[in-house]
Amino acid sequence: MTKTLKGIGASDGIAIAKAYMLVEPDLSFSKSSVSEVDAEVAKLQKAIATSTDELHVIRDKAKENLGEEEAQVFDAHLMILADPEFTGAVEQKVKDEKINSEAALDEVSTMFIGMFEAMTDNPYMQERAADVRDVSKRIMAHLLGVELPNPALINEEVIVVAHDLTPSDTAQLNKKFVKAFVTDIGGRTAHSAIMARSLEIPAVVGTGKMTAEVAAGQKVLVDGMTGEVIVEPADDTVAEFTQKAADFAAQKAEWDKLRDEKTVTADGKSYTLAANIGTPKDLTGVHENGSEAIGLYRTEFLYMDSAELPTEDDQFEAYKEVLESMDGKQVVVRTMDIGGDKHLPYLPLPEEDNPFLGYRAIRISLDRQDIFRTQLRALIRASAYGNLGIMFPMIATIKEFRDAKAIFEEEKAKLVEAGVKVADKIEVGMMMEIPAAAVLADQFAKEVDFFSIGTNDLIAYTMAADRGNEHVSYLYQPYNPSVLRLIKHIIESAHAEGKWAGMCGEAAGDPIMVPILLGMGLDEYSMSATSVLKIRSLMKKLSTTDMVELAERATKESVTNDENIKLVNEFMDKFSK
Amino acid sequence: MTKTLKGIGASDGIAIAKAYMLVEPDLSFSKSSVSEVDAEVAKLQKAIATSTDELHVIRDKAKENLGEEEAQVFDAHLMILADPEFTGAVEQKVKDEKINSEAALDEVSTMFIGMFEAMTDNPYMQERAADVRDVSKRIMAHLLGVELPNPALINEEVIVVAHDLTPSDTAQLNKKFVKAFVTDIGGRTAHSAIMARSLEIPAVVGTGKMTAEVAAGQKVLVDGMTGEVIVEPADDTVAEFTQKAADFAAQKAEWDKLRDEKTVTADGKSYTLAANIGTPKDLTGVHENGSEAIGLYRTEFLYMDSAELPTEDDQFEAYKEVLESMDGKQVVVRTMDIGGDKHLPYLPLPEEDNPFLGYRAIRISLDRQDIFRTQLRALIRASAYGNLGIMFPMIATIKEFRDAKAIFEEEKAKLVEAGVKVADKIEVGMMMEIPAAAVLADQFAKEVDFFSIGTNDLIAYTMAADRGNEHVSYLYQPYNPSVLRLIKHIIESAHAEGKWAGMCGEAAGDPIMVPILLGMGLDEYSMSATSVLKIRSLMKKLSTTDMVELAERATKESVTNDENIKLVNEFMDKFSK
Repeated sequence: MTKTLKGIGASDGIAIAKAYMLVEPDLSFSKSSVSEVDAEVAKLQKAIATSTDELHVIRDKAKENLGEEEAQVFDAHLMILADPEFTGAVEQKVKDEKINSEAALDEVSTMFIGMFEAMTDNPYMQERAADVRDVSKRIMAHLLGVELPNPALINEEVIVVAHDLTPSDTAQLNKKFVKAFVTDIGGRTAHSAIMARSLEIPAVVGTGKMTAEVAAGQKVLVDGMTGEVIVEPADDTVAEFTQKAADFAAQKAEWDKLRDEKTVTADGKSYTLAANIGTPKDLTGVHENGSEAIGLYRTEFLYMDSAELPTEDDQFEAYKEVLESMDGKQVVVRTMDIGGDKHLPYLPLPEEDNPFLGYRAIRISLDRQDIFRTQLRALIRASAYGNLGIMFPMIATIKEFRDAKAIFEEEKAKLVEAGVKVADKIEVGMMMEIPAAAVLADQFAKEVDFFSIGTNDLIAYTMAADRGNEHVSYLYQPYNPSVLRLIKHIIESAHAEGKWAGMCGEAAGDPIMVPILLGMGLDEYSMSATSVLKIRSLMKKLSTTDMVELAERATKESVTNDENIKLVNEFMDKFSK
Repeated sequence: MTKTLKGIGASDGIAIAKAYMLVEPDLSFSKSSVSEVDAEVAKLQKAIATSTDELHVIRDKAKENLGEEEAQVFDAHLMILADPEFTGAVEQKVKDEKINSEAALDEVSTMFIGMFEAMTDNPYMQERAADVRDVSKRIMAHLLGVELPNPALINEEVIVVAHDLTPSDTAQLNKKFVKAFVTDIGGRTAHSAIMARSLEIPAVVGTGKMTAEVAAGQKVLVDGMTGEVIVEPADDTVAEFTQKAADFAAQKAEWDKLRDEKTVTADGKSYTLAANIGTPKDLTGVHENGSEAIGLYRTEFLYMDSAELPTEDDQFEAYKEVLESMDGKQVVVRTMDIGGDKHLPYLPLPEEDNPFLGYRAIRISLDRQDIFRTQLRALIRASAYGNLGIMFPMIATIKEFRDAKAIFEEEKAKLVEAGVKVADKIEVGMMMEIPAAAVLADQFAKEVDFFSIGTNDLIAYTMAADRGNEHVSYLYQPYNPSVLRLIKHIIESAHAEGKWAGMCGEAAGDPIMVPILLGMGLDEYSMSATSVLKIRSLMKKLSTTDMVELAERATKESVTNDENIKLVNEFMDKFSK
């Protein structure tokens, strides 16, 4: 029977394929005593052996499809399976207590997980808890005869259906076969949504109940533009969407022609469309999509993909590679934004009740100046190889900006004195993502070279709602007039002091937001590289003078997020050329 | 040797007494095997017996000094001590494994605590984990011959020195003997600071290292006004401070004369000084200190002090008592503000990564309308007995306010239809504590009867800093120009629509903040009742016209929190009459 679900279109495109259920299986069991201990031990050993064979296959597949690094997690799993301290203890428990293997496995693994998790001063061992959990799950599935999803083994075209997708899930997916994602929860800015856009595959998130409405193998149609998902579509629906997919492909081909064009509106105003990147690997996408700059280079990955603090030289090489590749176009590097939900195994952070309101980003950098100065030196040295901008994340007070900038100037002066070649001009700016800074933007504008608005955090703090928390996700309102007023104040404050303002949050590539931002005069729009051509095409159709009125009404007349969505649609119908 | 420490003066007054160390003792031990098992068991039994005797004494003392309710926790401890499942298991472990009692106790209690904590669907059992922890600590102390602090047994005048004071610590203190608090951490708005002000005893918080700098029994001098703490003061210092204490007492006597006066500034403008309360028990302080209204009645205690949801009638009685006692003066009741750091044992809330940015207050009320409607009905029924105002906490969007108000109107109409007597006028307002609402205050002002500014949360969200997190406590900046701009916008927006604006955060009773607020025209100042007379005295010396210039400069010229503290001091020196 055909079913239609509505979610949030998170990555454009249309796909039809069968459903692959990436869901937690039911691994519940009852504890019982066993009389035939030998038979029970044999059952356990068989489950362990099957798990081991399976993990070898998965490891090899993962290495082949995803690379050595992604495959390493399975080596860790195999080590645990081979460790007599673990599997031997389960077997011993079955023998000693004459209980079923499921109960013995559960008790031993719970004990190990608890032990590892209790090592709060050793993040490496704490992470082993997750490995024990994964391995136990696999043995348990074999004990119970339940099938476990093994995304690394997908070898036919599928649409992945999941409650949510974690970074480790996505790392295991073979991008060749996954035609689309559909998830129960999440919004446009969820990890899975961002990942889908970067892979350029359609995605629909926040359907609420997709995992309950579809069974493995059913045919699923996904429209990443409208958020529509159809399970077991009728033939005429398939035909209709096949036509839509062809139209979309044609539109993409049109967009592709804009690759080497400038970004100019219908009334001849120029803007900069930039890309957000995480590592030099992302440069291919930046160039393929005709990005005019890099508006956000997130340096966290340098720290997170490493077993220890990256050295000054390691950092220098990465920054230099990106700067050279951009050939004179500006690269804005954000200094380390660790803390919140991002942790480093080798830099233990305090346990916090509310990490998003805690010790993170510039707050750590100003406290741990050893780490901060190393990063700044690497950046200043790399500046000779291109057009570098530096910005500080999570600036709340003028004093923080002044302190951070003073440290930058100190390190620069030292390097110049030592005869190191540095660029004549390095712009130093800040992220605008804390309400305190946004409200005082007119004062900050006197101190900075530029602002870059980080919408995700700015919205979270302004609305006092964690966007990752499904119970308050209705408060993630990018078009709420309060948020728009702050954004407008930031842009106007920058311009009043002759500075430029950009945006590097997801909203910068959002077709509802862009007309408003244009009306406010935002200078640079930094987004997933895959959105650049679509937004360039959109901007060509818009006239800034029309959008000025839109921005005024969105901040002065409207009182809700929904009113502003309606208002933008009205303006687009009326003014889009 | 005399030592001087500087902290934050959190509650006015001067005290001299000897130090009582309310600190965690060192309970570390080594695991070892024992050959004399019988002797080890005897040692364990003795420690358990001593702990039992001690807990009986503490229970009786607590009941005598603090009341039946506070003493009940010790009954729970005694039950655990008498439970063979717990103490028997420790003894058995000593016998079976031939290990020392300390190790056996640690392993058994860790197991029980883990078990209770894992019962995430049963908050009652989860709370038992804390009891097991407390009892184990007591037995361990006796095993190791270490003295455990027993604050309930204090029977001489002391100054309590602690790293921090938890609500359960303070519940055990005999208010007759505790002359002051000094803590290592916390600020003016910490729980311990608020508690000290409500008890009217001096307190200094945030000294950083007081617990390390003083030993039990040393003489300590505490000045809650300047934040100065002197350990082993010289005789002339004692004399000097004894004089200061006398001066302070004389000043308090002066303030007391203002009890029945109106609050009028030097230039003849009238304002309302109101009190914040948690339960009808606080009414005594409200009347004794000449409060002109109740600006915040926190209803959480009705929910938190109860084993189940309070009934409509229970709530009605509490609200009625407060309204009648205030004899026509306004009582603003805040609807339930649960969530964040406040939990109810009978209402399980979701586990959240950032509860301050999560499911709390009005977000729960709009979701759980059964609870919300019960509270509103109780309030509407009580309105017949006085001058009631109702306000909703954590309003972020206009839609939330409209939804909450519509539910109020529905319940009111139903009660009127049923012939229940209700007041002709019940003002319905909102807390202003989320930046989104503050920024859009001009639009909100069209919908509400009044605003009440909650500074603690407003500052936390505006600065993106959890005030309970010591790593970012430097960002708790009430005088930051951003925060002051939002406050000014809220007040001006209210006045533009003919509505009134109050403040019910700690800042409303802060002598640095009040001159600025006066300059902004804030109408109502709601604070700890014990601050009312001091602020009335301060306001009599100030002229609003002078303060208008202060408010302008604090929001337009200043760029930092510190500049504004300096600015207020300048204005006070120049203009205070």
